[in-house]
Amino acid sequence: MAKNIAIVGATGAVGLEFLSVLEKRDFPVGDLKLLASPRSAGKELTFRGKKYKVEALTKDSFQEIDIALFSAGSSISKEYAQHAINAGAVVVDNSSAFRMDKDVPLVVPEINPEAAKNHNGIIANPNCSTIIMLMAVYPIHQKYPVSRIIVSTYQAASGAGMAAMQELEEGTRAILDGKPFTPKVLPHVAAFNVFSHNSAIDETGYNQEERKMVYETWKILEDDTIKISATCVRVPVLRAHSESIHLGFRDKTPSEEEARELLSSFPGVQVVDDREHSHFPMPIEASGQFDCFVGRIRKDIAEPEKEMELFVAGDQLLKGAALNAVQIAELLL
Amino acid sequence: MAKNIAIVGATGAVGLEFLSVLEKRDFPVGDLKLLASPRSAGKELTFRGKKYKVEALTKDSFQEIDIALFSAGSSISKEYAQHAINAGAVVVDNSSAFRMDKDVPLVVPEINPEAAKNHNGIIANPNCSTIIMLMAVYPIHQKYPVSRIIVSTYQAASGAGMAAMQELEEGTRAILDGKPFTPKVLPHVAAFNVFSHNSAIDETGYNQEERKMVYETWKILEDDTIKISATCVRVPVLRAHSESIHLGFRDKTPSEEEARELLSSFPGVQVVDDREHSHFPMPIEASGQFDCFVGRIRKDIAEPEKEMELFVAGDQLLKGAALNAVQIAELLL
Repeated sequence: MAKNIAIVGATGAVGLEFLSVLEKRDFPVGDLKLLASPRSAGKELTFRGKKYKVEALTKDSFQEIDIALFSAGSSISKEYAQHAINAGAVVVDNSSAFRMDKDVPLVVPEINPEAAKNHNGIIANPNCSTIIMLMAVYPIHQKYPVSRIIVSTYQAASGAGMAAMQELEEGTRAILDGKPFTPKVLPHVAAFNVFSHNSAIDETGYNQEERKMVYETWKILEDDTIKISATCVRVPVLRAHSESIHLGFRDKTPSEEEARELLSSFPGVQVVDDREHSHFPMPIEASGQFDCFVGRIRKDIAEPEKEMELFVAGDQLLKGAALNAVQIAELLL
Repeated sequence: MAKNIAIVGATGAVGLEFLSVLEKRDFPVGDLKLLASPRSAGKELTFRGKKYKVEALTKDSFQEIDIALFSAGSSISKEYAQHAINAGAVVVDNSSAFRMDKDVPLVVPEINPEAAKNHNGIIANPNCSTIIMLMAVYPIHQKYPVSRIIVSTYQAASGAGMAAMQELEEGTRAILDGKPFTPKVLPHVAAFNVFSHNSAIDETGYNQEERKMVYETWKILEDDTIKISATCVRVPVLRAHSESIHLGFRDKTPSEEEARELLSSFPGVQVVDDREHSHFPMPIEASGQFDCFVGRIRKDIAEPEKEMELFVAGDQLLKGAALNAVQIAELLL
């Protein structure tokens, strides 16, 4: 029953969460291979109380591996996934390398677990903003189909990796101390600032992160008629994304109570919607949590018969990355 | 020509900006009276190189005053505005006390300056989020009427006053140092967090800040048919608000070039929309600026024929408060 696991990018922000999630979810891990760049080789990481030495990733790293969890960027996935498959492993890939490939399933286990069955060696983990949005939208959508999504994100530094998280902390300290600070990882000063997601903008005027939210949603929900518009923005938050979501419905619109019930009975979702105490989803509370928090659930004030608004917060490194990937791996057991 | 000016709330975050804006805009100030709570009385503030002593606000503070700039909260405005009017002054009120009163003009000088003429002693300064949104929407709306606005805000701590700005800095320092921190001014930890604006929520599910953006926009644009939905959110930023704005058009939709031209030729607006270098409006750059910055100007990716999206950043203490109020006072000269 136990599976031999390789983690590619083991020393990164998501890589470290893979270890923690596998442990917390009692994943039946046989052999464990921690792979990273030669620079990180030799480091020691602990899993279930045992120390493992990080090895440099090579073509030959995947012998005897059953499941390879990749989170080292698209170019590493493109270069090494096939080697893992050739060695007999199934790849669960957290990068965007294969997400839109026709023969690669794109899976959120609570939403489309059956898609994972038809893999050809690779299953892709969706973009973090897409996963967290769908955890708030799908529970309602499955009963009340949505035809329109307009979303604005409040994205954490973790989406740009551990170095970006450190830069947010260092930049914040510098600004508080009145010292100059020039960012090296992120394109702009993150501390006490907000800036547009810096992925490439195409002729539509939308950046890649925003387009991912459209195309990945269409693929996961198997419905490209849903009109989706996203504005992706970074905020000075360490590791949980928040999103302000506006929904239009195809046919019927649920009542607020129905929407709340659909959400609270959905696995992986907690409703945090206390109007009296102004307690709604916050990244600081979603950080470190497996569940996504959904609140501000309300009929649209201008179009109450047809539209609805809500707000979600979810840990970018967990449900947005490592947790969702480990849940995919669980589907392979 | 010179006007005798009283500033109510002179030691607050907006009060201090009143002094700076009056100076920078060469406002013809005759006598200057700085008023605040008894606690702040006796403090000295500098205006045009001269020191002024802050006095405790009383009913009799307004003798010989021509224009009284109020920014000390609704209850102070309700209690003292009439005394200022009785003494012959015109009140420019930055609080929400009178904004929706039928006989009180609600003015953004670039948008509806003519409304200021019909005052009965009080002219109200709109809510900061409303002003900053309209500076981005009105330049387009005046030629291409909008029928729908869906907005999500990224609001700075300054909107909750100077104590909230200090709390953001203190809380940030505490969290960076790994120390516990309990907020006293804001309802939640602001540092490295995002939370829903904590103004009172009514039966619609919308909070007061969000409803202000609806009703004040209707009053300023004299059009209550525009469907407006707002989600107001605080982010760890010191003094400039940002807003992600989705527009639907009543008849025709402008091209991106037309929208950019309408915005860049509008007073008080700068277009910051460099897709190649990912340089768009940011609160850190809008802070301390009189202009609002508008960018991410794009046809909606899902409804390019009918809808458009953009992003604005503006200094909450300046165009969102002190600058707009001083511009209103300039209309009285």
